[in-house]
Amino acid sequence: MEKEITIYDIAKDLGVSPATVSRALNNHPAVNEKTKKKIYNAAMEMGYQSNVFASNLRSKRTNNIGVIVPRLNSSFQSSVLAGMEKVANEAGFNLIISQSLESKDKEIANTHSMFNSRVDGLLVSLASNTESLEHFAPFIKKKIPVIFYDRVGNFEEMFGVTIDNMKAAHQATSHLIEQGCQRIVHVLGNIKVNVYHERLKGYKYALLDHSIPFDENLIIYSDLNEEAGYDIVQKIKSIEPRIDGLFVSNDACAASCLKQLKLEGYRIPEDIAVVGFNNDVISRLVEPNITTINYPGYEMGELAMRNLINHLDVNTENLLKNTNRITLRSELIIRESSKRK
Amino acid sequence: MEKEITIYDIAKDLGVSPATVSRALNNHPAVNEKTKKKIYNAAMEMGYQSNVFASNLRSKRTNNIGVIVPRLNSSFQSSVLAGMEKVANEAGFNLIISQSLESKDKEIANTHSMFNSRVDGLLVSLASNTESLEHFAPFIKKKIPVIFYDRVGNFEEMFGVTIDNMKAAHQATSHLIEQGCQRIVHVLGNIKVNVYHERLKGYKYALLDHSIPFDENLIIYSDLNEEAGYDIVQKIKSIEPRIDGLFVSNDACAASCLKQLKLEGYRIPEDIAVVGFNNDVISRLVEPNITTINYPGYEMGELAMRNLINHLDVNTENLLKNTNRITLRSELIIRESSKRK
Repeated sequence: MEKEITIYDIAKDLGVSPATVSRALNNHPAVNEKTKKKIYNAAMEMGYQSNVFASNLRSKRTNNIGVIVPRLNSSFQSSVLAGMEKVANEAGFNLIISQSLESKDKEIANTHSMFNSRVDGLLVSLASNTESLEHFAPFIKKKIPVIFYDRVGNFEEMFGVTIDNMKAAHQATSHLIEQGCQRIVHVLGNIKVNVYHERLKGYKYALLDHSIPFDENLIIYSDLNEEAGYDIVQKIKSIEPRIDGLFVSNDACAASCLKQLKLEGYRIPEDIAVVGFNNDVISRLVEPNITTINYPGYEMGELAMRNLINHLDVNTENLLKNTNRITLRSELIIRESSKRK
Repeated sequence: MEKEITIYDIAKDLGVSPATVSRALNNHPAVNEKTKKKIYNAAMEMGYQSNVFASNLRSKRTNNIGVIVPRLNSSFQSSVLAGMEKVANEAGFNLIISQSLESKDKEIANTHSMFNSRVDGLLVSLASNTESLEHFAPFIKKKIPVIFYDRVGNFEEMFGVTIDNMKAAHQATSHLIEQGCQRIVHVLGNIKVNVYHERLKGYKYALLDHSIPFDENLIIYSDLNEEAGYDIVQKIKSIEPRIDGLFVSNDACAASCLKQLKLEGYRIPEDIAVVGFNNDVISRLVEPNITTINYPGYEMGELAMRNLINHLDVNTENLLKNTNRITLRSELIIRESSKRK
């Protein structure tokens, strides 16, 4: 290991006092811009590392913010992370990212690891089988803010950033009904996850509002991946009386269903009108284009991160207690896959 | 701020010695499993944070590994990150992630920030306008390993993990020629980026090997996004003599071209045979399915991270000097968009 470069080395090299170097590197107003620049350049050239550890020990801050996602490998989550990173980077924070892989146990382990790494705050989208928020208690106890987003669980006591999933699903279902659909299949994920729970509610309420009876046989549970279309369409074929609408809880899976329906000879939207969710790229590239809910992941990431950073500078407890939920606007985008009129 | 919980508090609470608590938390074999578990549970309940700072000061390790990507919001990069996170997590490392947004200046700023955060190692996929690797010099000087992946630049002196882009493009172009194509358009990104540079070479060599003259008019530069298809197809329509093959450097853009070509009345693959790159989900969902190069992002992430972690434990310098490049296997996947025979 090479000897660590200190401010004394820089001072000696430039023929200024160590105090000037220290002030310059801390951007002190008493040092003029030209000198600052000279000292900054010399520090870079010589490979000086500001003593983050020591400074962290003093400030009790690491400037690291933890993010736990169900899967990194997801179009929605990568948009969210892109938004988070932008805000964090501009505010001088680093992002520490880990994935739960939809496992409660891995989420707990990641939470402990984030806690021991002393992150200044934590952003979490929950695993599908997480049943309690106990593992976040050490953060709350230490007054380290935790903000949930998208997958916020069905917990009332925590702070979360979401869209109005119920309303979005109500809109999607109502749109299908307005296009003349009476037998609408809803494809969704694990009902323990708040987003699917809320969307199922929205679907049911829309039927009710249009006096269409709810039929349990029209609900299909799926892992919503890009290959799920085959199985879903097999189920759809066996449903009597035959269906005329399909509302799928993500676009990749909706695209997979669309492809399979066409292979089976169904005309879209004439025989079956299709609506997806998320407004992923794929919804705009398949034929016909898929009607979907625009779910602004990037904006959600920005908003969640901005809120977290704000919480670091104020009396966290009160803010988190007084605000329970931030809801982002989402909207229905009508395209060819459902437009009959 | 609440008082920090120490091993003395845990020891007092459980009626054991502080030394036993310390050994248990460090997973020392002298403490039996039952006691370990009891101490571990108590530590969690009481909100004990292991003293990472102090331990870092001793070991000169932070257990943080930095990753700089051009964009988080990319199907390929999110696969890579998923692979990296898995390996890092299992080995007890955290991932600190930032994006350069394809800007050299932001990449330099991120590199400084990673250096000051004292990451143990750095994984980088370069921005498209990065022209030198000078900003990584402080890492090399401190013997902190830096590994490049995918976008490794056209630099001979650094260690990188890539696929054989030249060979992959040669395969894709040769396949189109074997299907009877003679006038093949190649759509690619900024030629300063090694991956596009290498693919263009592979395209040219394949033409040469099949005695087809290279025509500069058949090269189209693009930002390769999902909306680029319109402009690309306008250009294609104006080319004389008319083209019969299309090789696009990513699948989202290939899908966009496919859609536009069909709108213009071209039959795929009869009039124009199409090949993409990456094997993204989208290549399997559009019609016809797109022939593509399988580029295993997840495996690349695993491999790059495993190599970095190995370098932390050995004499880094020699290893990095002796190995210059790791090449991952890629392969052509033939589908309906190009199959004429």
